[in-house]
Amino acid sequence: MIKKVNSIISASWIFTADKNNTLLEDHSIVILEDEILDILPTKNVFDGYEANEVFALSEHIIMPGFINNHTHAAMSLLKGFANDVPLKSWLEDYIWPAEKEYVSEAFVKDGSLIAIAEMIKSGTTTFNDMYFYPNQTAEAAVEMGIRANIGLVVMEFPTNYASDPDDYLKKGLDFRDQWRGDGLISTSLAPHAPYTTSDKTLNTIGTYADQLNMTIHTHLHETKEEVENSINQYKATPIQRYKSLGLLGPNLMAAHCTHVDESDLNLLHQNNVNVVHNPSSNLILGSGIADISKMLDLGINVSIGTDSSASNNRLDVLEEVRLAALLGKGLNHQPEILDSKNVFKMATYNAAKAMNKSKMIGSIEPNKKADIVAINLDSIFSQPVYNPLTSLLYNGNQGGVDYVWINGTIKLKSGQLENIDLDRLKNIAKSWKAKIKKT
Amino acid sequence: MIKKVNSIISASWIFTADKNNTLLEDHSIVILEDEILDILPTKNVFDGYEANEVFALSEHIIMPGFINNHTHAAMSLLKGFANDVPLKSWLEDYIWPAEKEYVSEAFVKDGSLIAIAEMIKSGTTTFNDMYFYPNQTAEAAVEMGIRANIGLVVMEFPTNYASDPDDYLKKGLDFRDQWRGDGLISTSLAPHAPYTTSDKTLNTIGTYADQLNMTIHTHLHETKEEVENSINQYKATPIQRYKSLGLLGPNLMAAHCTHVDESDLNLLHQNNVNVVHNPSSNLILGSGIADISKMLDLGINVSIGTDSSASNNRLDVLEEVRLAALLGKGLNHQPEILDSKNVFKMATYNAAKAMNKSKMIGSIEPNKKADIVAINLDSIFSQPVYNPLTSLLYNGNQGGVDYVWINGTIKLKSGQLENIDLDRLKNIAKSWKAKIKKT
Repeated sequence: MIKKVNSIISASWIFTADKNNTLLEDHSIVILEDEILDILPTKNVFDGYEANEVFALSEHIIMPGFINNHTHAAMSLLKGFANDVPLKSWLEDYIWPAEKEYVSEAFVKDGSLIAIAEMIKSGTTTFNDMYFYPNQTAEAAVEMGIRANIGLVVMEFPTNYASDPDDYLKKGLDFRDQWRGDGLISTSLAPHAPYTTSDKTLNTIGTYADQLNMTIHTHLHETKEEVENSINQYKATPIQRYKSLGLLGPNLMAAHCTHVDESDLNLLHQNNVNVVHNPSSNLILGSGIADISKMLDLGINVSIGTDSSASNNRLDVLEEVRLAALLGKGLNHQPEILDSKNVFKMATYNAAKAMNKSKMIGSIEPNKKADIVAINLDSIFSQPVYNPLTSLLYNGNQGGVDYVWINGTIKLKSGQLENIDLDRLKNIAKSWKAKIKKT
Repeated sequence: MIKKVNSIISASWIFTADKNNTLLEDHSIVILEDEILDILPTKNVFDGYEANEVFALSEHIIMPGFINNHTHAAMSLLKGFANDVPLKSWLEDYIWPAEKEYVSEAFVKDGSLIAIAEMIKSGTTTFNDMYFYPNQTAEAAVEMGIRANIGLVVMEFPTNYASDPDDYLKKGLDFRDQWRGDGLISTSLAPHAPYTTSDKTLNTIGTYADQLNMTIHTHLHETKEEVENSINQYKATPIQRYKSLGLLGPNLMAAHCTHVDESDLNLLHQNNVNVVHNPSSNLILGSGIADISKMLDLGINVSIGTDSSASNNRLDVLEEVRLAALLGKGLNHQPEILDSKNVFKMATYNAAKAMNKSKMIGSIEPNKKADIVAINLDSIFSQPVYNPLTSLLYNGNQGGVDYVWINGTIKLKSGQLENIDLDRLKNIAKSWKAKIKKT
């Protein structure tokens, strides 16, 4: 009996990112509605299934869609707005004034649309965001058809978006209620950073996290100064302070962690905190380099983020995993560590686990959502291919990203975005630039 | 009076890499035969010139063609052959046995063709190579129409190519004589590395360099072990040993220099040695990170190389300059250093200077050879563009490389290689892989 399904994707290689990091050859993925129904050898697939659409990708490697685990998507409108300047000036003379002047519902919606187009074109199917006006980020995500976990940002100081911690929290929770049950959107509590949130605010957030069983997304130990200032002010590192406030746990996603000493590292480990590594941003802003190989050795769950376009300036997970692998090898003088399977796991399964979504996404397994990327390895940059995973990691690039499915729907086909008017998005970017540049 | 010329290229932005690092807006480059004849505002260009071909590139930034200052082009056949393995095993179990079994005239010709296709497609117009069978690398370069400075490799131990230092030297100098006067090909003496060449051989090379007024291309201080072993064996670091042998000078191009102490650094500086930074390769092989910001502060001439596809695995100068900038900022906690103008200079003018070719290539100025790259900044990855140079450096990628001219001839047009059959080259790569994989 032949079962009717939506799509069959056959590929030369499938990296499943399952618990054995299986790499399959000449297999097919069967998609029914928004889920992966089956994975089986291509030679047998048509014995059991008949599909509306068949994709025969003989030059491709298929992976779980990449998960960009730390973004501020809307900031794509500030992409390259202030590179090559000292951190203090970057914040005080460029980013904060521009945000004060321009950040609005329209800015967030438009910036998020552009960021999402970049992300889908480079193979990302889920992003973990934190910014103002979450409703507009969610609207952009649903319009573009990408999965998003959206942070309910909270900080002490007022912005265009909210006036004080209570206002941030109320707006965030209202947003959460409004989108509850949406197939693509989920939320985290998002205390911006230890240095922008008081103990009182962090306590409130911890209470909500417990009561509502929510994940928490925060910046933590991004710079040396942040750690030094915390020791001066609180007699504790930010990690120690979060511990004492009850915030360190498996529901915490801590972006950066570039400066952690042995005792901080142990706290992260003992409390099963999820670390999000953002190597490009940490280098560009001069923050430093997180030694993730040490974290991985301890068994800490490490995932990958690009951070925002204002400090990267790419939202390209393939570039981020390559850089993560290279930095780990170079810093530790060990070319064998951070191998291709483990770093691709960081960009897929580990990120899903950090978001508490590993039953839904992050690997190619039956009954998971069909979030899939197919990358062409037939270009002159990829040939010859001795090992498809190392080929993709070390000499692949976004130019090879040909197909993306999210929730079973095709979003990128032969390198072209489906039902998305790129020229419109580029014009939006240009018109914001014309406005912002005048500042 | 209107002058007839071959081409006029008009662009929104031209980074000249001249001594003032000038960035021109809305200017045109006039090409006559193989040279840049004039550079003037686009609004005036047609008052003085009439061209066979006009390129109106309103979304593009034009730069001097990139110079990849350290390659082993033929090794593109071993691209990704052995990633994620310890250095000793990489050499002893993979690279050396494969080279012993397969390196031949055909291997070098075929591997070089593939490498050159990659290089042109990513904006490189000159490469500085070192490998066996230089004649085949030169043949490939001329067939593809790229400029190449080819090292006459010398080492103590025998290979398929030559039996002993005298044999290497004789073959190299014969090759040099054969190609003398070629418009695209030049040569350097290339003692492989301090640990593979004896004092006697290095002395001979120094003598030839003086008598023939030749540049020298070598690996130097690539790994910590190399330095330690040299201290044990010679009571001197490799740099000190080269000094005592009279090899340190402005004609020396020293690839890597990842482990140099203060006194080594001073020797490099005082002797005007040219350093070639290969950040990806140094990280992938676990060699470490060269602190080029210190070198640049001293006034050392630093250029950029990709090293080979066996240890990068990309021959993509745009990726290398981005990584160089990021590492410098991150390691020194100074986001303002290694800014876009300075790092693009490393990939253009500094490299030409190192090769002793700065009167001919490396910047966009009248009477220089027309080696030019035009990169599109209109993609969703580039928009919005606040600053074309930082946009190219931090969020550009090879996908934007649309046009390349070498010696006045167009080699890449709208992203497509001119008169080069890419499918043929990919099939060559695949057939070598089928052979080599069986090993």
